[in-house]
Amino acid sequence: MIRIIEVGPRDGLQNEAEPVPTTLKAEFVRNLANAGLREIEATSFVSPKWVPQLGDAADLWPMLKPGPLYSALVPNIKGLERAIEVGVDRIAVFTAVSEAFTQKNINMSVDESITTFSEIVKSFRTQIPDGWVRGYVSTAFECPYSGRVSPEATASVADRLKQIGVDEVCLGDTIGVAAPSEVKRLAQALNLPRDMVAWHFHDTRGTAVANVAEALELGYTAFDSSAGGLGGCPYAPGAGGNLATEDLVYFLERSGLATGVDQKKLAEASLPVLGALGRRPSSKSQLAQLSACK
Amino acid sequence: MIRIIEVGPRDGLQNEAEPVPTTLKAEFVRNLANAGLREIEATSFVSPKWVPQLGDAADLWPMLKPGPLYSALVPNIKGLERAIEVGVDRIAVFTAVSEAFTQKNINMSVDESITTFSEIVKSFRTQIPDGWVRGYVSTAFECPYSGRVSPEATASVADRLKQIGVDEVCLGDTIGVAAPSEVKRLAQALNLPRDMVAWHFHDTRGTAVANVAEALELGYTAFDSSAGGLGGCPYAPGAGGNLATEDLVYFLERSGLATGVDQKKLAEASLPVLGALGRRPSSKSQLAQLSACK
Repeated sequence: MIRIIEVGPRDGLQNEAEPVPTTLKAEFVRNLANAGLREIEATSFVSPKWVPQLGDAADLWPMLKPGPLYSALVPNIKGLERAIEVGVDRIAVFTAVSEAFTQKNINMSVDESITTFSEIVKSFRTQIPDGWVRGYVSTAFECPYSGRVSPEATASVADRLKQIGVDEVCLGDTIGVAAPSEVKRLAQALNLPRDMVAWHFHDTRGTAVANVAEALELGYTAFDSSAGGLGGCPYAPGAGGNLATEDLVYFLERSGLATGVDQKKLAEASLPVLGALGRRPSSKSQLAQLSACK
Repeated sequence: MIRIIEVGPRDGLQNEAEPVPTTLKAEFVRNLANAGLREIEATSFVSPKWVPQLGDAADLWPMLKPGPLYSALVPNIKGLERAIEVGVDRIAVFTAVSEAFTQKNINMSVDESITTFSEIVKSFRTQIPDGWVRGYVSTAFECPYSGRVSPEATASVADRLKQIGVDEVCLGDTIGVAAPSEVKRLAQALNLPRDMVAWHFHDTRGTAVANVAEALELGYTAFDSSAGGLGGCPYAPGAGGNLATEDLVYFLERSGLATGVDQKKLAEASLPVLGALGRRPSSKSQLAQLSACK
């Protein structure tokens, strides 16, 4: 059974400067749920000072229609408390393999981030015993500041997240550089059961679907993606950031793997948000689906 | 040794209504050669009535700078004569698996096309004994008019092209629908030596690089692509048509397979033509390469 973790509402929107109204975000998530997506990372309880776009997390959460499994990113204890207050029971924490990256992005060393997350997870488990925790490992292949990352270094951070008790480790090709051979090498270095691992590929250079194909071949079944390819680098219109959910679903369905997702509804799900941002879809399957052209 | 067959100047331009000046085409081909591409399908000696864009084939050919192996599409004996007149010694002929497709595109049945090509190849071999012939097999996976195509049907057309004496068979996913599992099934059905086969993937739904990865895994080493992703469907801006050479080269190089291509020069090679057509690049790697953004 393939799992698709839709991250558009959080990861796709977080770097967008143009504020998206909360009602539009709720509509986006509702569209995604109606298209058949069962796991949606809906927002982040990050400080509104850091990410103004997601400052409405506590307002958005109660607007989410029951059905899918919703999760939210929590960067610190304060975010955790805000999340729990509105009923969040699936959280994600976010670190990286590269020191340069964690310093720049979360202002901590990797060690500090693991310590912080350990406290978050402990507090979360006490308050929400049936909750679920994902640990993101960013720069799993390469860091934009310090270059290539060894599979062993990534495996080691993944191990440490497992030790602090996350349910799932999500390995991110943050800058979208990896090729399938690197996915294979990283998989060989991992010490985690396959069903504890999700892959978060970026399609910046067109390799994301090939990387998914390789991971599937290796027995992995959980993949992140972002509807409409939201989360692309704003400096390169049309360049992929996150793997587009439309491209992932098309590939899986065409490969004979049922996703439960309605491709037509999915292609339309992100249009209101893309419209509000003045962006065109960057997903090729979405464009093909929306277009009359064969 | 990987072979990249650059088809942008022919396949990429043939559907563009806006006329591209011959000098600009020559510059495009020169840029591609300077970027390190060694096989370039430069034009088609098709009737200017059918494809006005390529009506300047005989003018363009003498402008091509020596170095790479240049080839040209020839649809019929008249085109062959025009091509030979200006010194073409590598030709390509074009058929499909689907009757509906050949009728609509070349106004012949598959049988008729094979008969025509047999005469073309015979005449070509007599006149140019050291020449080289490629046979395109379009709709190798699916036809836009008649649906899915069986691997056996494609293998059978490939066999017939071999029988009439082509040097290479090029299998085209004309509408960009195939997934890697289909590449595998088709490869299993083929009766040709691997080095007689090239793959021509379209990236309409984002699966082209994954399909290349699968074909490589199966031992194939020749791939078509189009610089700048030229040849995309005009009704879906940003949607992929041909696999972009930039995405192919990035994937190969990152996978440790040397291509001899300079990725920076390649990213810039198609810009003048794209500019003349008023199009943005549809290649993700090209955009990433051109952008300051990481």
